[in-house]
Amino acid sequence: MENVKVGIIGYGYWGPNLTRNFYEIPESDVVAVADVKEEQLERARSKYPEVTYTSDYHDLFDMGLDAVVISTPPDSHYPIAKECLENGLSVLVEKPLTLDSEAGELLVDLAATQNKTLMVGHTFEYNSAVLQLRDYIVEGELGDIYYIDAARLNLGLFQKKSHVLWDLAPHDISILLYLLQDQPVSVSAHGMPCVFDGLYDVVYLNLIFKNNVSAYVHVSWLDPCKVRRVTVVGSEKMAVFNDVDEYKIKIYDKGVDKPLYTNTFDEFQCNYRYGNITIPNIRYLEPLKQECLHFIDCVSTGKKPVSDGVSGLRVVKIIEAAEKSIKNHSTHEVIKW
Amino acid sequence: MENVKVGIIGYGYWGPNLTRNFYEIPESDVVAVADVKEEQLERARSKYPEVTYTSDYHDLFDMGLDAVVISTPPDSHYPIAKECLENGLSVLVEKPLTLDSEAGELLVDLAATQNKTLMVGHTFEYNSAVLQLRDYIVEGELGDIYYIDAARLNLGLFQKKSHVLWDLAPHDISILLYLLQDQPVSVSAHGMPCVFDGLYDVVYLNLIFKNNVSAYVHVSWLDPCKVRRVTVVGSEKMAVFNDVDEYKIKIYDKGVDKPLYTNTFDEFQCNYRYGNITIPNIRYLEPLKQECLHFIDCVSTGKKPVSDGVSGLRVVKIIEAAEKSIKNHSTHEVIKW
Amino acid sequence: MENVKVGIIGYGYWGPNLTRNFYEIPESDVVAVADVKEEQLERARSKYPEVTYTSDYHDLFDMGLDAVVISTPPDSHYPIAKECLENGLSVLVEKPLTLDSEAGELLVDLAATQNKTLMVGHTFEYNSAVLQLRDYIVEGELGDIYYIDAARLNLGLFQKKSHVLWDLAPHDISILLYLLQDQPVSVSAHGMPCVFDGLYDVVYLNLIFKNNVSAYVHVSWLDPCKVRRVTVVGSEKMAVFNDVDEYKIKIYDKGVDKPLYTNTFDEFQCNYRYGNITIPNIRYLEPLKQECLHFIDCVSTGKKPVSDGVSGLRVVKIIEAAEKSIKNHSTHEVIKW
Amino acid sequence: MENVKVGIIGYGYWGPNLTRNFYEIPESDVVAVADVKEEQLERARSKYPEVTYTSDYHDLFDMGLDAVVISTPPDSHYPIAKECLENGLSVLVEKPLTLDSEAGELLVDLAATQNKTLMVGHTFEYNSAVLQLRDYIVEGELGDIYYIDAARLNLGLFQKKSHVLWDLAPHDISILLYLLQDQPVSVSAHGMPCVFDGLYDVVYLNLIFKNNVSAYVHVSWLDPCKVRRVTVVGSEKMAVFNDVDEYKIKIYDKGVDKPLYTNTFDEFQCNYRYGNITIPNIRYLEPLKQECLHFIDCVSTGKKPVSDGVSGLRVVKIIEAAEKSIKNHSTHEVIKW
Repeated sequence: MENVKVGIIGYGYWGPNLTRNFYEIPESDVVAVADVKEEQLERARSKYPEVTYTSDYHDLFDMGLDAVVISTPPDSHYPIAKECLENGLSVLVEKPLTLDSEAGELLVDLAATQNKTLMVGHTFEYNSAVLQLRDYIVEGELGDIYYIDAARLNLGLFQKKSHVLWDLAPHDISILLYLLQDQPVSVSAHGMPCVFDGLYDVVYLNLIFKNNVSAYVHVSWLDPCKVRRVTVVGSEKMAVFNDVDEYKIKIYDKGVDKPLYTNTFDEFQCNYRYGNITIPNIRYLEPLKQECLHFIDCVSTGKKPVSDGVSGLRVVKIIEAAEKSIKNHSTHEVIKW
Repeated sequence: MENVKVGIIGYGYWGPNLTRNFYEIPESDVVAVADVKEEQLERARSKYPEVTYTSDYHDLFDMGLDAVVISTPPDSHYPIAKECLENGLSVLVEKPLTLDSEAGELLVDLAATQNKTLMVGHTFEYNSAVLQLRDYIVEGELGDIYYIDAARLNLGLFQKKSHVLWDLAPHDISILLYLLQDQPVSVSAHGMPCVFDGLYDVVYLNLIFKNNVSAYVHVSWLDPCKVRRVTVVGSEKMAVFNDVDEYKIKIYDKGVDKPLYTNTFDEFQCNYRYGNITIPNIRYLEPLKQECLHFIDCVSTGKKPVSDGVSGLRVVKIIEAAEKSIKNHSTHEVIKW
Repeated sequence: MENVKVGIIGYGYWGPNLTRNFYEIPESDVVAVADVKEEQLERARSKYPEVTYTSDYHDLFDMGLDAVVISTPPDSHYPIAKECLENGLSVLVEKPLTLDSEAGELLVDLAATQNKTLMVGHTFEYNSAVLQLRDYIVEGELGDIYYIDAARLNLGLFQKKSHVLWDLAPHDISILLYLLQDQPVSVSAHGMPCVFDGLYDVVYLNLIFKNNVSAYVHVSWLDPCKVRRVTVVGSEKMAVFNDVDEYKIKIYDKGVDKPLYTNTFDEFQCNYRYGNITIPNIRYLEPLKQECLHFIDCVSTGKKPVSDGVSGLRVVKIIEAAEKSIKNHSTHEVIKW
Repeated sequence: MENVKVGIIGYGYWGPNLTRNFYEIPESDVVAVADVKEEQLERARSKYPEVTYTSDYHDLFDMGLDAVVISTPPDSHYPIAKECLENGLSVLVEKPLTLDSEAGELLVDLAATQNKTLMVGHTFEYNSAVLQLRDYIVEGELGDIYYIDAARLNLGLFQKKSHVLWDLAPHDISILLYLLQDQPVSVSAHGMPCVFDGLYDVVYLNLIFKNNVSAYVHVSWLDPCKVRRVTVVGSEKMAVFNDVDEYKIKIYDKGVDKPLYTNTFDEFQCNYRYGNITIPNIRYLEPLKQECLHFIDCVSTGKKPVSDGVSGLRVVKIIEAAEKSIKNHSTHEVIKW
């Protein structure tokens, strides 16, 4: 099989990491890199002199590429991805897929019409720790899931044209959907624009799934501590995924056993279980590398990506509903699926 | 001046700590302890043999006491405190003051009429770390406060007749009011009864103060980790009070400086400050001891307690509004002050 | 059976904790407390008014006591314990048993002659975490023990008449002997008197046991961090006992598997095992309470204490040899058992 | 000025990092890479296709190079560095410089005769945190240095032909010499071959400097926890450099003030200072990049490297003496400088 010929659009913050990975994967060739800023191209050129460089991504359409990787600012995801798909290219676009769901749906439809791969860069769906955590959930190790609490906090990096929800929440939302294998019924949110008028830098989200399972997400560009944590509370066990800890996952054999029937309410007694804590050894695989390998595999074989356009669209719809809730003073917005 | 004669009502979970403190304070004498359970009285008697014991707290009214300390289950706070005040005794009652605001108001009025001290056991208002944190805020060290995020999580202890909001949130709410020296305009909340029908064990609160200052409180009886943390984010610095850390307070000289006027929106650039972190040395004083000393001082001198009945009532009103919000699907409930 | 009548000698730093425990144990009565300082007696009297107080411990010999608990400065352990045993009293003496082994041997012999209990306050031999760690070792869970590394560090508390080895090392040495169920063949040490001439405040110890098992102990009165940690490295697993962590024991299923025979040295390949980490849930029992209960049990029944005089003497001999090694520039001093 | 033409010898564990850095530095060109293993060359070739590859480093002598970077197994450092210097090339060799001091001296002399740069890869001398820590020490912020304690522990990576001292201790020893700006008078050590006969995998070192300043180094290939920590205890303040912490340096304003003269020894009282802890914000610069930049600068200008051959030789002499001490049962070996 021939190598997949890849073009990179956007060599700013995340583009270099994507480029490096596609460069190193034996089954893909990085043919060209496009960026509007000359100094970014220069940075790339010094590392990969044999690649073609251009400031206009339209040049990539005549190079016989199979696929492009888009890591430009979020508001340009839609127009660029659209043109790329129209020109017969498979697309890996950074999260979020788009900044509104209508545009997202158009992309999903276009990819189907064109019969091309459309994949979104939800890196955590390729993270060994998240995969293992899902296995625990699916296998019933944690019992029924009561709720999930997620936090992604640090200082910066403020973006100009999109707020913290679009920047950080796609990670946590994609993790939630992936762990629960479900999509929320409704969402409510409270957002604050602390530093710049109109630009939310701190948002609290509440997602309600079927059977009263809830999830909470706290994202912030304005916190003194770097936090990347997902706590899953089940009826049997509890688990914490802490991405800034040396040990990513801890499983707590802790819980509350409901009392059996008692004669009087006064005799009601909880039975707390405080069992062992287990830190499973997880074989570390760079999530971004796994994501890139998966994209190449999907482009080559026509396989449906784990984080396909539909999955990206789901995240966009949730954030869109959350934005609406913020404006409506934290109403629970029902999401139309 | 004569010693303050104190009676203890309730020798269950927290009563022994209160008793020990009043026993050890030179200016107070523990004269009697009342508890409905004989085994609790027995436990107390083995430590303090010279004290009088009774299973009926009404017996305390004829002993020439100056004050009583009430640490019974929350639903009995109101009737017991009422009787004690009516019998001319000053009262220190464990948090929450009452389980509804009407009852709380009656107690506040009664204490005024009787000219007796009514104080609520908001321990954190006597905690050296919280005091120091408030000093930083008041002196402007942190700049304008953007928001405060508080979490109080662990596994257990479930209570029978009141949910997690009444159990844990009084601590965080009293800290918030104390730090901001203000009371919220409105509150919204989302609560879940994970283990027992109708008994919230996990609640998320959002309090809105004047000038769009927000505070978030996450309380849980169902978390694998013991968390007691308050993060204060200001325009100049940020601070974390972590009560389960060896070092209670950390001050982060971190922030975002708004850009000066720039010609085009595109030139907009944030300036992040990543300065030093300071861990101030705080002279540790047992908060409960400080609280008990303060109560004795107020009873002796007629001074108004820091955590007086009005302060306790404020917390009750907020929790009451939060309960209403939970039932109304997280509406923002405006609080009538 | 009648209660054991106990007298306390020394109500300074540790005495109050011992007194509280014996006071609360149903099977023992604290009859009298002796201390040379009036203010310490006053402190005790305010808590236990019905106990007899004296500034001269000789007064305790005529009170019909069964046992005394000695927590005076280390250099007085020997003369006081000797007199107490001579007067027919069982003795629990704080660590170290004595400051020289000759004196220690006299006490051991005296206790035997008098047929009285002589026990040393090696608290960690009554610590649930240490007990569990020993079970792991004894049951072979860790495989062969390669070495143990222990550290006990913090700032202060300097003592006047004895250096850091006598103050802190008895804890670690008693833990080592207890875990390995063995006594070292030789010991070497390096000590520094950083702050005061002639007073070691930082010492590094190396104990050599049979079969080349080694143990290292680092004790310091002059470290910025509070450290209480014992690392046990075995051929199968490794374990850490961290007494300042919420979770006391961690078992690491990690190790190196020796390669099988290979043809050339160059083909030599290690096989590292990186397995799960387990944090066992340990039922917490206050170690000092367990120690006091054990003493009362031994006095009542004539049972031999876990940390009996012989065990205390072993620790004294090791420290004595370590002192000699320090003076001889870290020679390995063989210990005569 | 023309770019420095660099050849890389050894593309195993560390070589790829060195290559990447020299490749990215604008003032240097990576002209050729030599390695005996074809698969390592292949790995390099896929990243840097335009570079020349060879399995025989002698081929590098005819390429008009200015300098070579040697990251081969330690026992080959000497012969390769010698040939390179003889062929008129400047040399950056990975630590340790050599495995015996005689060979090291020959290299130092040869570099002087040839008038070429000889530098050793003591990365930590180019680490911003270590630089800042030295500034604190030099400026007297910590007062007189009492002692330094260093630990470098983890599981693996065992090497075949040299033990843990040669592998890990060069880092800590070079840090110590750099921080104290001094060389030790004597060294003693205790080493254990736990897993393989004759191969020390755990070593404890004690270095004695002038004025009784001591340093301790614990290195281990056989510890469950990854530790990289240097504690500096001074008469005024204490500092910890923790390379695996998000915050590299903590300065503790803690200490013991010696008492003034007192009439009786019994009145002796220490005054402990427990002040603030400061975590300075350190601008992070990749240490290896700084090291590579410094090498290029020295080669270009003839400047003496911070970690020059003499500095590398010092570390070799100390380890050599430590090996002798291990064999002589931890004697203090005086080092001839």
